[in-house]
Amino acid sequence: MDSIAGAGGAMSPDHLPDEDVDALEQWWRAANYLSVGQIYLRANPLLRVPLEAGHVKSRLLGHWGTTAGLNFMYAHLNRAIRERRQQMLFVTGPGHGGPANVANAYLEGTYTEIYPDITRDEEGLARLFRQFSYPGGVPSHAAPETPGSISEGGELGYSLAHAYGAAFDNPDLVVACVVGDGEAETGPLAGSWQSTAFIDPVHDGAVLPILHLNGYKIANPTVLARMPEERLRKYFEGLGYAPRFVDVADPRDHAEAHRRFAGALDDCLDAIREVQGLARARSKAGTVPADGDGQPAWPMIVLRSPKGWTGPRVVDGLPVEGTWRAHQVPLSGIHENPEHLAQLEEWLLSYAPGELFDDAGVPRADVVGLAPQGELRMSATAHANGGRLLRPLDLPDPRDHLIPVASPGVERAGAMANLGVWLREVIRLNPENFRLFGPDETASNRLSAVYEATDKVWQAQLLDVDEHLARAGRVMEVLSEHLCQGWLEGYLLSGRHGVLNSYEAFIHIVDSMFNQHAKWLKVHRELPWRLPVASLNYLLSSHVWQQDHNGFSHQDPGFIDHVVNKKAEVVRVYLPVDANTLVCTMDQVLRTRDYVNVVVAGKAPSLQWLGPEAAAAHCAEGLGIWDFAGSEVAGEEPDVVLGCAGDVPTTEVVAAAAMLRADDPGLRIRVVNVIDLMRLQDDREHPHGLTHEAFDAYFTTDRPIVFAYHGYPWLIHRLAYRHTNHPNLHVRGYIEEGTTTTPFDMAMLNRIDRFHLALDVLDRVPGVEERRPGLRARYEERLVRARAYTREHGEDDPDIDAWTL
Amino acid sequence: MDSIAGAGGAMSPDHLPDEDVDALEQWWRAANYLSVGQIYLRANPLLRVPLEAGHVKSRLLGHWGTTAGLNFMYAHLNRAIRERRQQMLFVTGPGHGGPANVANAYLEGTYTEIYPDITRDEEGLARLFRQFSYPGGVPSHAAPETPGSISEGGELGYSLAHAYGAAFDNPDLVVACVVGDGEAETGPLAGSWQSTAFIDPVHDGAVLPILHLNGYKIANPTVLARMPEERLRKYFEGLGYAPRFVDVADPRDHAEAHRRFAGALDDCLDAIREVQGLARARSKAGTVPADGDGQPAWPMIVLRSPKGWTGPRVVDGLPVEGTWRAHQVPLSGIHENPEHLAQLEEWLLSYAPGELFDDAGVPRADVVGLAPQGELRMSATAHANGGRLLRPLDLPDPRDHLIPVASPGVERAGAMANLGVWLREVIRLNPENFRLFGPDETASNRLSAVYEATDKVWQAQLLDVDEHLARAGRVMEVLSEHLCQGWLEGYLLSGRHGVLNSYEAFIHIVDSMFNQHAKWLKVHRELPWRLPVASLNYLLSSHVWQQDHNGFSHQDPGFIDHVVNKKAEVVRVYLPVDANTLVCTMDQVLRTRDYVNVVVAGKAPSLQWLGPEAAAAHCAEGLGIWDFAGSEVAGEEPDVVLGCAGDVPTTEVVAAAAMLRADDPGLRIRVVNVIDLMRLQDDREHPHGLTHEAFDAYFTTDRPIVFAYHGYPWLIHRLAYRHTNHPNLHVRGYIEEGTTTTPFDMAMLNRIDRFHLALDVLDRVPGVEERRPGLRARYEERLVRARAYTREHGEDDPDIDAWTL
Repeated sequence: MDSIAGAGGAMSPDHLPDEDVDALEQWWRAANYLSVGQIYLRANPLLRVPLEAGHVKSRLLGHWGTTAGLNFMYAHLNRAIRERRQQMLFVTGPGHGGPANVANAYLEGTYTEIYPDITRDEEGLARLFRQFSYPGGVPSHAAPETPGSISEGGELGYSLAHAYGAAFDNPDLVVACVVGDGEAETGPLAGSWQSTAFIDPVHDGAVLPILHLNGYKIANPTVLARMPEERLRKYFEGLGYAPRFVDVADPRDHAEAHRRFAGALDDCLDAIREVQGLARARSKAGTVPADGDGQPAWPMIVLRSPKGWTGPRVVDGLPVEGTWRAHQVPLSGIHENPEHLAQLEEWLLSYAPGELFDDAGVPRADVVGLAPQGELRMSATAHANGGRLLRPLDLPDPRDHLIPVASPGVERAGAMANLGVWLREVIRLNPENFRLFGPDETASNRLSAVYEATDKVWQAQLLDVDEHLARAGRVMEVLSEHLCQGWLEGYLLSGRHGVLNSYEAFIHIVDSMFNQHAKWLKVHRELPWRLPVASLNYLLSSHVWQQDHNGFSHQDPGFIDHVVNKKAEVVRVYLPVDANTLVCTMDQVLRTRDYVNVVVAGKAPSLQWLGPEAAAAHCAEGLGIWDFAGSEVAGEEPDVVLGCAGDVPTTEVVAAAAMLRADDPGLRIRVVNVIDLMRLQDDREHPHGLTHEAFDAYFTTDRPIVFAYHGYPWLIHRLAYRHTNHPNLHVRGYIEEGTTTTPFDMAMLNRIDRFHLALDVLDRVPGVEERRPGLRARYEERLVRARAYTREHGEDDPDIDAWTL
Repeated sequence: MDSIAGAGGAMSPDHLPDEDVDALEQWWRAANYLSVGQIYLRANPLLRVPLEAGHVKSRLLGHWGTTAGLNFMYAHLNRAIRERRQQMLFVTGPGHGGPANVANAYLEGTYTEIYPDITRDEEGLARLFRQFSYPGGVPSHAAPETPGSISEGGELGYSLAHAYGAAFDNPDLVVACVVGDGEAETGPLAGSWQSTAFIDPVHDGAVLPILHLNGYKIANPTVLARMPEERLRKYFEGLGYAPRFVDVADPRDHAEAHRRFAGALDDCLDAIREVQGLARARSKAGTVPADGDGQPAWPMIVLRSPKGWTGPRVVDGLPVEGTWRAHQVPLSGIHENPEHLAQLEEWLLSYAPGELFDDAGVPRADVVGLAPQGELRMSATAHANGGRLLRPLDLPDPRDHLIPVASPGVERAGAMANLGVWLREVIRLNPENFRLFGPDETASNRLSAVYEATDKVWQAQLLDVDEHLARAGRVMEVLSEHLCQGWLEGYLLSGRHGVLNSYEAFIHIVDSMFNQHAKWLKVHRELPWRLPVASLNYLLSSHVWQQDHNGFSHQDPGFIDHVVNKKAEVVRVYLPVDANTLVCTMDQVLRTRDYVNVVVAGKAPSLQWLGPEAAAAHCAEGLGIWDFAGSEVAGEEPDVVLGCAGDVPTTEVVAAAAMLRADDPGLRIRVVNVIDLMRLQDDREHPHGLTHEAFDAYFTTDRPIVFAYHGYPWLIHRLAYRHTNHPNLHVRGYIEEGTTTTPFDMAMLNRIDRFHLALDVLDRVPGVEERRPGLRARYEERLVRARAYTREHGEDDPDIDAWTL
């Protein structure tokens, strides 16, 4: 069946000259040889002597199944890049095809440029082979070590989102994204296809998805591979694509396969040029149709090729090529099975290494002649090493966005709303390399001021009722945390900046994506050739203490716990307490590189604590003693330290301190507020950690500490347990007591409210109750009263701050 | 456009008798009235007196936008249930339409049966209204408190997976699943549509998806609502559905809307009967076509209706009905704005409450006449309260599957492979209410023995090369952790049993789904009418210490940390150390109810420690002193306690103890192995926790403890920090040091290997180095030697156990 013609492309399958077929075939054979060599060989890399078991690795690890197909596509993309001088980035979803990425980078010369030890000769080949899946070597999937990669190939599901992220604001780039048919079963990948509703043909580049139907996962067929073609076509047409099907009908007829794929690829690249050309011409002429029915159908390729193509067809009497048995290592037990050894040799020789490499082991010029030059090589493109393209953000002066605070804890303001104004200016100053991502919550999180400067991106139908929707803009909203995170990762790793804003509880949806990105950054930082990229910044609001009608299911502050399990060099956590500390914190984090920054802040109007100068100083230090809230006497140790981190706990601590000071003026209280949570660790554990001496200076060595924390209380113990005064540290936080209720009731349910905190102080500081008999009863009675008010009125007592602060 | 006829259904849109239209309309009006009442009213529930601001809640919370549509569908499903006596379960993805679920349950009488305080009279109505989104009341979305619900409506994305999970092995059930067009943008939901490749028309029930296109999310249009209908149709046809489109062309023409929807619904239910009937007849006759091209197209409905249908059309001059402005509360500021108050009264009166309720406030008989009887009511079905249907598993005697262990630490066996045999028997004994779920990793995790008793479920094309694939079976494999988890949750909450097996690192993909399920269970346990359901059991293998070629990206033991943040009553964590303890542990957890059990075990053959009796006793206690590994003298305190949890750390601890004993026979070592991790907490924190006295008996009050733990080391501190001897506790674990390497090299990189542990003992126990000078240097040299072997040979020294154990 001639699928290419069926797709309506202009190219006939016969358009490819024979010399191009030969060039493609040679490159493909070389890449396949290098791939099989990586999986199997520890010596004799060019098969100069008959293969012996001793030349073969003792542990055979790797994924052959997807590799030959990836090599095939890479060769074809190279041909197209050379013919068109097209900037391309290669994103591989079937990440365990790592041997392919490495093999092609080696053929292009990039591998040796980056890792000079892996020379282009026999010795270098031996090293290249040996390091693969070898202790301390390179993993069997695409990774930061892999030149040209921006997508870790371990956990599946994110390739397409990464590809679109890299394409945004890169109008001249085409991102070829291979989606494995296994990966296509994952939720995040299934959701990523709808990126067609968000990619702007005028200002963005294009993504060319290549769905690789090789039929099988580890041990099962794949859902998409077993769909009748007609259903598959409908599926993708529904999603906004115009698929071109390339079936490898006869796996032995390579020339025919090359002609078909080349035809489809040329057809797709022509179609991309046409889609973009039309949109850009209309944009220039001001004739952009508002009606989304004009949304283009983006080309894509569906390549059906046998799993383990060109590998052993039958092993031990069972079919292998084209089945799931080709998934990993098609031949095993080489050391024990001479037949398998012979079969391996035959397989390797089928690529005719003598024709591919010269006597010194250098790839022959006619083999590598298909490689593009310099930066056009996909293994060398700066788009896959974004630090090379990174321009620092032009950040508005935070001082222009800090609000006056006449006296701490009197006025209320919305921290997120104020930040929205600052972010609006960030967007105005950086119209081409900053985007704000969010799962339909940018307005809900009170950042709407950004819409004074930009719009939300939307390529589908526009209606009169829509507000702030446009074909181009800086705000990306889709109800998928996975897509937001994946787009942002692709955007960052290709050298731009961004923020992901979300509800605190639901950011756990991307826990595993965060893991992979944090691990990527850890390795990336250790590679000198990978230049620093902008940090991944989470701005989490609608947090655990402000869930009102949403209730228990929306109450989860555990993302912080999840984040701090990763390497200290990579993670940072901030809990600003008011409008000014939030602006200062965001200004800090947007300047950082190679981190994951987590910033948690409430969206409801709340009490303001620090004026502009105090906020800047407090954020610079990351924590501080709040003299205005305490009652210390100079030169004396306090009776108790009240610590706090997070906006709601801080309000409760200051209120508890105020009550206690009023009720027992002799009590010496110190209030310590922590913005930069990692300050609580010690300096051997985290670069921001305090020395033991510094911690002692804040928290004393022997006084009781009552600490009110935004999240799960045990995290504070885990951070601070090495410090001297840890035995006296008592922490209140969220203990999974939640329901549909008011913010103050939530505090009471979790015993983090001012009354419980004051009672905690009474429990720990001797003498207060003797001096002030009845104080315990009074606080307990206030608790009862506050609870009753909430149940009676359905809201918190509006006067509660007045009668406690 | 007459979409119904276009779908090829047999019904004409005029088939519905007028009296049915009236009945539907009355029910719908009543449910809408009760919904608006819940959102707004705190008094005057029947509008017996003119509405005053004082009758209206001060905080207005809730989501009107989706609610009217849900009520509309509920009424129609009731008509169909009555006509066909069809068992139905209602799953609502647009979960914030909670007022709808509550309103319909109230009309059906279920609400009052379950919550007798919410009577069917004016007083009860007032309570019903007041509790909604009120402190301590019910959340604004579907929740455990909601009769008839199995799907928490907070975090979006899982409704369709839950629906399919409930349909498995329920051949007479139809699960009507409303998917919101917002939710449809999430990855997990987008991936769930492919469940058509897994639902068996012979032995399973059916899912009837109803995609509810009301056009808008919180602040944006939805992707699916703005797709041209032709693309939407293709999308669903591609996914294996036959969509019926119902457009509410004129929102005021209710009769027409009722006729269209009823026609589509009847058509769908007929089609389900036809699909199932044909498949069942063929199955009975033994003429099942193996070719998946015969996979049926399952009916579904696409309902396009205005957001906030029947609500205010225009507020303050801006359109509301049919726009995103109707998403939450269309009229606000009632207390300050008399115009809004008047508009609210008008809106409420538009439903004519006087016709719906009698003078006492009881819903009139002709209104509630549409309700099905008894268990057929969707709010009362046992399928949504699975504990009522739960039958205990018939479990094979673990003793038949325990292996002899002549001497600890000598023989090797594969714990997961052995468990596979036991699970095979579980499957044989429980052919209708147990399933094993996994993301294509059941074989990779070495559980293949289950295929001797059953197959993997697959409805698509079958080929000769396939193994263990069949139309029916007990194993569900799809490369989507989300789908596995969602299916399992639906299966459990509807009263069955299951296990999810997965790679340890990637189970983080469902962190957030676990959160929601754990929160569901916490609330569920507090509701006496919800009967206990089977626990959700995770069996995690391919763990952090055995990643070989996969490397750093596959190394993450943090799911345990994530799990223990949830309520202690709900979560259990087990780390069996060998084949026998794994079988005993799984036997334990499959007997439990209302928990989440996490079991982590390696899949590689490893040393066996405990024989059948010892393993059973050890698992019953959850931890124990291993005399065979230590060198204590009766009646004396040991010099050091070596603790361990997890299979790899246990091997390292026993080896370290053996080396130390051999090198310094005078050293008194105690080895404590922990299987049930929560035993380390204290008994006030966790039901499994040890008393301080019991902890002291194991770990002493003052001797150094060197503890080797499977996961992140700080978790052990977080669990044990209240115990007496915590200051002397030193923990080794995974510290994010990983790469592509061997298991023993991984242990060394993270300093959890036998040599580092022995050095830790030297650091902490005075006298050893004096007695045995040179010991430190010898251990350090052994480390160097072990590392060198690995780099040289690409594998661990096979003799390492021989020369250390």
